[in-house]
Order: sequence, then structure tokens, then C-alpha cells
Amino acid sequence: MDIVQKILDGDIRAVARLMRDIDDEIPSAKEVLKELYPHTGKAYVIGFTGSPGVGKSTLVDRLVDKLRAEGKTVGILAIDPTSPFTGGAILGDRIRMQRHFLDPGVFIRSLATRGHFGGLTRSTHDMIDVLDAMGKDVIIVETVGVGQDEIEIAHTAHTTVLVTVPGMGDEVQAIKAGIMEIGDIFVVNKSDREGSRKTVRELRNLVELGLRRHKTEGPPWEPPIIQTVASKNKGIDELYEAIIKHQKYLFDNKATKLEQVLYDRAKLHFIGILRDQLFNTVIERARERGEDLDLLVSKIVHRDVDPYSLANELVERELVNSKSKEK
Amino acid sequence: MDIVQKILDGDIRAVARLMRDIDDEIPSAKEVLKELYPHTGKAYVIGFTGSPGVGKSTLVDRLVDKLRAEGKTVGILAIDPTSPFTGGAILGDRIRMQRHFLDPGVFIRSLATRGHFGGLTRSTHDMIDVLDAMGKDVIIVETVGVGQDEIEIAHTAHTTVLVTVPGMGDEVQAIKAGIMEIGDIFVVNKSDREGSRKTVRELRNLVELGLRRHKTEGPPWEPPIIQTVASKNKGIDELYEAIIKHQKYLFDNKATKLEQVLYDRAKLHFIGILRDQLFNTVIERARERGEDLDLLVSKIVHRDVDPYSLANELVERELVNSKSKEK
Repeated sequence: MDIVQKILDGDIRAVARLMRDIDDEIPSAKEVLKELYPHTGKAYVIGFTGSPGVGKSTLVDRLVDKLRAEGKTVGILAIDPTSPFTGGAILGDRIRMQRHFLDPGVFIRSLATRGHFGGLTRSTHDMIDVLDAMGKDVIIVETVGVGQDEIEIAHTAHTTVLVTVPGMGDEVQAIKAGIMEIGDIFVVNKSDREGSRKTVRELRNLVELGLRRHKTEGPPWEPPIIQTVASKNKGIDELYEAIIKHQKYLFDNKATKLEQVLYDRAKLHFIGILRDQLFNTVIERARERGEDLDLLVSKIVHRDVDPYSLANELVERELVNSKSKEK
Repeated sequence: MDIVQKILDGDIRAVARLMRDIDDEIPSAKEVLKELYPHTGKAYVIGFTGSPGVGKSTLVDRLVDKLRAEGKTVGILAIDPTSPFTGGAILGDRIRMQRHFLDPGVFIRSLATRGHFGGLTRSTHDMIDVLDAMGKDVIIVETVGVGQDEIEIAHTAHTTVLVTVPGMGDEVQAIKAGIMEIGDIFVVNKSDREGSRKTVRELRNLVELGLRRHKTEGPPWEPPIIQTVASKNKGIDELYEAIIKHQKYLFDNKATKLEQVLYDRAKLHFIGILRDQLFNTVIERARERGEDLDLLVSKIVHRDVDPYSLANELVERELVNSKSKEK
């Protein structure tokens, strides 16, 4: 297949077209992804997550400079909330592209989150596979916020970097409550601001709490807390070194740690694909019968039927009867 | 069914047990939900969303005081990121419960986001139905962050309140890029802080931009921008009045606006139920065949098969052949 070879050769236009096809759910894209899959698994994936306003993009841009100086090629997936009228994701791309526009060693793609009904996870992993197959050494996945899908996605990176800023007491609370254990590295960005030390101290306490309470197989990893001022390029070397150190930790503990990361990522991807495919097929069949989704939902709104019974009905009609299939 | 009547009568212990069963995906919970469904559709649902640290919980607590003073009963669903070792959601419940513990007119439930693989949307809507059936006048759904699911959930409320704080320039950018159009009311909380006016001005510009560009059926709604200091109980009356005004707007424009909200919510709920049910049934059948999810994922990790082909295989095996079913 011509397009498969082009992507393996790193042809940027072919990659961009495939990504657009994935976004638009063009069936042929799936065939290409199938053929690319055996060529994936070589890239190192780094996840960046944190609330809006903590400066993730600037931090990622600086890290990319560092990675490029080290001779690594980089793919970036920026997962943005999207707006129909501002075209958020596309705007983001343009601003970012200015810095790395002339560098063929960097490929940047924004992913919108609109109207996917859970499809974000699947399409993000599709995109990771494409960047991996095209030969990028490092793939950076940047997710905004603390949403369920976004946490799950960041968590399946080899190394997950959790970014915060000083003076967000409640932010640290939120980290504590929810996403503490997904962070392999903590970054306090804008650390020239007041309250930086306090935030570092709070994070350190949380890390120690986590280490004490969490018992998994293999030696533990103590998440470092890095202070950065990304806009002034401060702390980027330290962040880079922390990532390298975590990478070494994963590969030193292949069976207990690295395998777990790869397994979690494949699982999330597969579940996303299977869920989408089942749902899309069943809805398509209902439509062929003259029952489109609008009609089904109207019945629920008017309380002619409850949503559970209606879902039951579709499942029972479309799924092969397990009794008759098994001997 | 005894439990159905108990819930309709507002029996708190029966409600709490049903909610736990929904969380644990106990099959009997679905049967109860089916019977409750005809009794739902009476409550007014308000969504609160915003980044961690903007003070959503305090704001909601104050609004609840106001609603109680007006004689309304209230159900609160707080969707929190959860931690296995801090028990985030439960902790949150306890803190909140202290304020409204002795008030039988308030029911608070936290919902965790761990490991649901998209099930958050479905279980949130299940919980809304339970609170609705038990007779709560107002249901407040509080979501953290700007995640895809969280935005979708907040968006299906009758009235969606978007909360921010002064001095988060990038935060406003994020609102601009992503979630501007889901906000029916904007709140600048902690508005005694520096930069409050600037934030209000920026939001106003965005609102005007949105009004100019967005053409939907029926008269437009101009989202008000309310300044609050929730910790000092300032601006809560204004927020309450804005909600009442938006409610009136929805009911004055029943065919074009209210119906749309109800349709969107039912659609999101139904899609969530159907997706979960299809996936769970197919995975259960694979397990019965001796192919559990772990085994399937291992094949993908070792690149014996790509995830698309494996999903295809399961879909083709489990779904009734559409050709033979249609005449």
C-alpha cells in the first residue's frame, strides 16, 4: 500500500492526510492503521497534564528545543477543547507551528475533543501509532485539565509529567484527591512566583504519603519535583534529566514496570476501538431499519420507553444469541 | 417493587443503596432504574464547571443555602477525580456533609471517575434520574476541569454555570477555545481579587463574539457575567436570579430551547447506556470462551495482532449478520 510506505518514510503530507481521515472516521484509515501497527512500539511517549493556565505548552516547547538539541525527533499531540466558532485547536497549532515550522524533525498535531462521545481516547492512541510508525523518537501528549479521559490518556505514557503553578492551594488539593498517582514527575512551573516553596513542600508531602501507602511490584519510583520557569527557559535541563532517569527506571524494571505501561496503553486503545466499533455498527443497523438515533432518543424524551429497556432491546436484537452459538 | 416505592418516597437509605449498586454495576440496579424512569423529568438540573481551585464547591454550598431558604429541596452530584489512597470523593463528601448534615432537604453524592472507561457519563445520568425520582426540586451537578466527559455532562443541565477566577489569563483563553458556548451563566468568583474587572471585560467580549457568530433557532440568550465572593456570601443572590431568569427563558422558548436541552441529555444518557451494555456483553462472552480481556490485550502488546483487526473479529463474531436479518 503506497500510503503505508509513505508514512513509514515520514512523508509529512501523507501523515497529515491520514490524521485527517482518522478524525473524520474514514473507513480506509483503519486499514492503514492495521498495516502500520507492526511498525509501532519504538517511540518513547511522554504525557503532560495540568489545568489550563499552568503553562504546559511553553514547557513542552522548551523541552522540544532540548530534545532537538539532543538529536531526537519529536511528535506532539496537543489535546485541546475545541470551539466551533473560534476553531480553538487549529489556532493553537498555528501559534505553536511558528516556533518549529522550519524544523522537519518536529510534527505537531492538535486533537479536538468535540462530540466524540468517548472517542477521544481511541483517536489519541491512533495518532500516537501514526507518529510512532513515521519514526518519531519521542511523542509528547499534552492534555488539558483533569478530565477522566484526559487523565487516562496521560497515564498511558511511558512518563507522565504533572504540571502545576505556585499559589494554587486548591489545585494541590485536586492533585491530592485525584491524580497524584499518575504523576511520574511533578513540575512547579512559573516558580519565580510567590508561594513556590510552599507548593513544592506540599507536593513533597504528598509524594511521601504516596510512597508509604502504595505497594506495587518491583522497586518504587520516587517522583521528583522540578521547579521551572518555562518562559525563561529555567529548569528545562532538570526536567529533561528527570525524564531520562525515569526512562532508565522503566527499562531497568522491564518486567514489572515497562510491561505494565505498554499493557495499560494497549488495553485503553483496544477498549476504545471495540466500544466505538460496536456502537457505530449497531446504530448504523438501527438506521438501516428506519430507526435513527434521533427517533430512538425522542421515544426516551417522551417517556414512551426508558433508556435501559431500549438499549436492552437493541443489544438483544443485534448480538448473536450466546446460547445457540456455544455448543 | 418495594425499593422503587421507597425511593419515590425519598427514603435516604434506599437511595444511598441504589446509588452504591449503580456504582458497583449490580444488575438489579438497572431494573430499579427502569421502573423509576417514568417518574423522572420533574427536577431542574444546574451544572457547575470550572478548573480546580476556582471555588466551585463553596459557591454551590452558598447557592444551596439560598435554594433552601426559597423552600427548594436539593440533590448535589459532585464529580471528583478519585484517588485509591486518599479516597478523594469520600473525603469531599464528609467535608461538605458537615454544612448540610442535619438538613433532610439536601442529598449529596460524590461520583468518582476512576476506571470507568467512559462510564462516567452514564452513571452521572443514572444518579440524576435517582435524585429526580426521589423528588428533589433542583439537582446540581458539579464537574471539575475541562475534560471532554465533564463538559458534556455539564452541558446537558438545564442551566450551565461556568466558574472562573480573576487573573487567569490563560484560563480565559481556554474558555475561549473550548467551552465558551456551553456557559449559560459565567461567574467570576473570588472577585475581590486583583484583575477581576479585566476578567469580566474579557468574558463580556467573548459573550458578544459568541452572540454575533452563533445563530440558532429562537431568540438568543445573552449569558450574564456574575461577580461573586462565595466565601463571603457575596453575589449569591445575583447568581440565583440569573438562574431563575435562564429557567424562565427556557420555558418561554419551550419548543426551540427547553426541548433541545432535554433531547441532548436523553441522547447522552442513552448512548452511554448502549455503549456500556454492548461492550460489557461482548467482553463477557469473550471471557466465557476463555478469551479474557487480559489475554486479548497481551496479543496486541506482543503485536501478534493489531487492535483494529482484533476488534473487527469480535464485532463480526458477536453481531448478528445484518444481511441475513434483513429481508
